[in-house]
Amino acid sequence: MPEIFDFTKYIYDIPNYPENGVVFKDITQLLADPQAYAMVIDTIANRYMGSGVTKVLGAEARGFIIGAPIAYKLNAGFIPARKPGKLPRKTISEEYQLEYGVDILEIHEDAITKDDVVLIVDDVLATGGTASAKAEICKKIGAKVLGFAFVLELDFLQGAQKIKEAGDYEIYSLVHANK
Amino acid sequence: MPEIFDFTKYIYDIPNYPENGVVFKDITQLLADPQAYAMVIDTIANRYMGSGVTKVLGAEARGFIIGAPIAYKLNAGFIPARKPGKLPRKTISEEYQLEYGVDILEIHEDAITKDDVVLIVDDVLATGGTASAKAEICKKIGAKVLGFAFVLELDFLQGAQKIKEAGDYEIYSLVHANK
Repeated sequence: MPEIFDFTKYIYDIPNYPENGVVFKDITQLLADPQAYAMVIDTIANRYMGSGVTKVLGAEARGFIIGAPIAYKLNAGFIPARKPGKLPRKTISEEYQLEYGVDILEIHEDAITKDDVVLIVDDVLATGGTASAKAEICKKIGAKVLGFAFVLELDFLQGAQKIKEAGDYEIYSLVHANK
Repeated sequence: MPEIFDFTKYIYDIPNYPENGVVFKDITQLLADPQAYAMVIDTIANRYMGSGVTKVLGAEARGFIIGAPIAYKLNAGFIPARKPGKLPRKTISEEYQLEYGVDILEIHEDAITKDDVVLIVDDVLATGGTASAKAEICKKIGAKVLGFAFVLELDFLQGAQKIKEAGDYEIYSLVHANK
């Protein structure tokens, strides 16, 4: 039987970050370790190999570290979804809800077309706000969203449910955390 | 004779962005086009194949889009250099000069060790401020910096000269712009 790669030993719990009472999941050591990083990218990318993905969409900033190599490996383009004011040309944007207030994600207007097949990638699926916003942007364009892929899903925040409200999308998470 | 790939046709000049009188070089279409993106990553990564790179160091946020797939292809770890407050554990930081004032880049203290061989990657070499700061962080740790790689070097801003002041580093840029 092949040895099962234990991704969880590279994920650190950081209590009270970024604020009191929150336990932050730090995945930087998963990226820093050459073997672990390759395993993360290969495991996710191999799942979509041959499925016709033309664009990988990832949100700044940690989403770039996971989405970009997956785009490269799938021979797709990489599309950065950014905070307002960071992209120099005309954009399509979408608001999403924060705990207090709203925020906005945007992509260049010509970055994705209705003929594209999009994989939406991020490091962590938490409440699903940015994930749903990215799906809504693709919906506005008329591009097909093949699915969502995450390194780590925080099951207790029910982000998958939030994404399902935006559409019947397939969701894959390499690691699940239930606390 | 093999056809020469023309990267420049994917790089757009954006006048008066982010401020009046500045011409911003937008490389997002170079990342969005699957063939062009693969050519960028392969051309840079192939140059360092077999040279023992163990860590690729890239600064947020666009540096992640170039550095991460190069790390993946070289079977190295990827280390994000971030603005203050974005990394949850103990960091090593370095100040660098802006046109007005200073800014800071930092990495996790345990992200790079003295035994690492580091390739510093970014999308654009402008004045060389963040590039030099990354070299200084490696110097503090005692890690070997193999060199610097950029997609685009703005020759007229003399960033290469600034990097050379920090040390006798090898610098490679895929595309040079002289205005």
